[in-house]
Amino acid sequence: MIPDKNSIAAAHERISPFIHRTPVLVSEGLNEMTGARLFFKCENFQKVGAFKARGAMNASLKLSREQQQKGLATHSSGNHAQALARAARMLGVPAYIVMPRTAPEIKKRGVCGYGGQIFECEPTLAARESTLAEVIARTGATEIHPFNNYDVIEGQATCAKEFFEDAPALDIILAPVGGGGLLSGTALAAHYFSPGTLVMAGEPAGSDDAYRSMQSGKIEPAQSQTIADGLLTTLGDKTFPIIRERVKEIITVTDAEIIAAMRLVYERLKIVIEPSCPVPFAAVLKQREKFAGKNVGIILSGGNVDLEKLGTFFSTK
Amino acid sequence: MIPDKNSIAAAHERISPFIHRTPVLVSEGLNEMTGARLFFKCENFQKVGAFKARGAMNASLKLSREQQQKGLATHSSGNHAQALARAARMLGVPAYIVMPRTAPEIKKRGVCGYGGQIFECEPTLAARESTLAEVIARTGATEIHPFNNYDVIEGQATCAKEFFEDAPALDIILAPVGGGGLLSGTALAAHYFSPGTLVMAGEPAGSDDAYRSMQSGKIEPAQSQTIADGLLTTLGDKTFPIIRERVKEIITVTDAEIIAAMRLVYERLKIVIEPSCPVPFAAVLKQREKFAGKNVGIILSGGNVDLEKLGTFFSTK
Repeated sequence: MIPDKNSIAAAHERISPFIHRTPVLVSEGLNEMTGARLFFKCENFQKVGAFKARGAMNASLKLSREQQQKGLATHSSGNHAQALARAARMLGVPAYIVMPRTAPEIKKRGVCGYGGQIFECEPTLAARESTLAEVIARTGATEIHPFNNYDVIEGQATCAKEFFEDAPALDIILAPVGGGGLLSGTALAAHYFSPGTLVMAGEPAGSDDAYRSMQSGKIEPAQSQTIADGLLTTLGDKTFPIIRERVKEIITVTDAEIIAAMRLVYERLKIVIEPSCPVPFAAVLKQREKFAGKNVGIILSGGNVDLEKLGTFFSTK
Repeated sequence: MIPDKNSIAAAHERISPFIHRTPVLVSEGLNEMTGARLFFKCENFQKVGAFKARGAMNASLKLSREQQQKGLATHSSGNHAQALARAARMLGVPAYIVMPRTAPEIKKRGVCGYGGQIFECEPTLAARESTLAEVIARTGATEIHPFNNYDVIEGQATCAKEFFEDAPALDIILAPVGGGGLLSGTALAAHYFSPGTLVMAGEPAGSDDAYRSMQSGKIEPAQSQTIADGLLTTLGDKTFPIIRERVKEIITVTDAEIIAAMRLVYERLKIVIEPSCPVPFAAVLKQREKFAGKNVGIILSGGNVDLEKLGTFFSTK
């Protein structure tokens, strides 16, 4: 069932013992630069380094104890994998994680660190799904999908709920969009807890399936030409209808614009974020006249970046 | 005059409208790794991205209005330069900053951004001093030395004072040591506000003049073979006696140890720090048996790093 006001509030109580209430940062310099009043919700400081801790924890806690004991399973290129492995450890049950062999090392290490069992596969959706099906057939584990799952969406919605509680009245809230779990949760939270707030998203131009889906009215396939490795997935049949109904606009940005925004976050906010994370801020920088004079909330989604790659990202200005 | 309890408290009130009260971060993962309870005071989030904002602001505010109006001057390779330029802007007076031409670009841009006037010189102490003397002769500006100045030391002491107020009772507090402004201020603050806390420092092995000065009992010259570019300076005749009397121990660490500690801060705390900053944390990692089971406060001194260089620092494990 699509999460509603009560279920999101209940999810927030359910997961609160297991997650951080992440801080909201501001920067005078970035406000001057954009002409807006920017508020950054720092999910890079969240457990496992990303908002994904919320949805994975919520969905896992809602299973029956019998289901939990057979294990939690998923395929994920990264942060959801760590989040589910951590949720399983919290519950004392196994986690079976199918990961493409190309996933960032830091994310694989994270899964192992939480005691998750990794099954590597080729980096295609078909290989991920068939490997996961085998694991589930053998173990009886329950699949917790990274985004196309209402309990996951409900968990992600708690991020925006906190944001509305901790920041001044936001005129606009932005999230990145990949599979749409965070964005659909953000849209539902805005609808129920801050109905005056417009919801927008940033999306990499090299993987602009959500943008094109909003235009065409049906789920369009993803390309995968962007450094924002967490945003390569396509919308799901649970996330898309919510996004279509409640998201005002999706703004696409190039990889160069993403890197420029990432540089500003490192230089001005002094925090570590991954390349999928600055995408909505890049959207604000790109269309600043749209945001000038407004209270703008930006969800910084995660901070798990292979440090070796930072030099490449920042080697040109 | 050497700062005392009342003068440090007065300095804290004096500068509070102009600086951030920076947060204290903790990490379960790093506590598990070291066996200690670590508290990180995040001066990388300070105005101008470093603790130097404190001392520069305090010393500038203590000048007469007539002195202020003739301008503030210094030679500095970095963060103090930005801090003094910002203090001058706050007071509406000129800042004359002598910088070695090798100073990091981000720090030069910072000085310009605050309206400071840069005079580039060769990267030697002699060139810095002679260039500064010329500027002062021409303008009548007052020199605010980066560390060998009691009003600067008094300002830096406010960092540890806050730390003692915001963290649980610390058994040990650590700071990095270059010229000794932060360390001597930290030692004074501990003496007056938390006398049960031991004061220690981390120093790069490639520039271990403070360590050698503690051994020999006189100020030893610095070498300059380390990535910790903010810690290349020698102790001064005002900082050394305080450090000699009140600092328990200086632990030296190699550049490889500094980079390993820096990597952990980026990966676990998700914050951006400069290479001088993880030095005391590297000392804790190196001698963990000394810190195990204790409440250990680590001052993270600053976050101004040329992002282009990060790839080099992190390119090997």
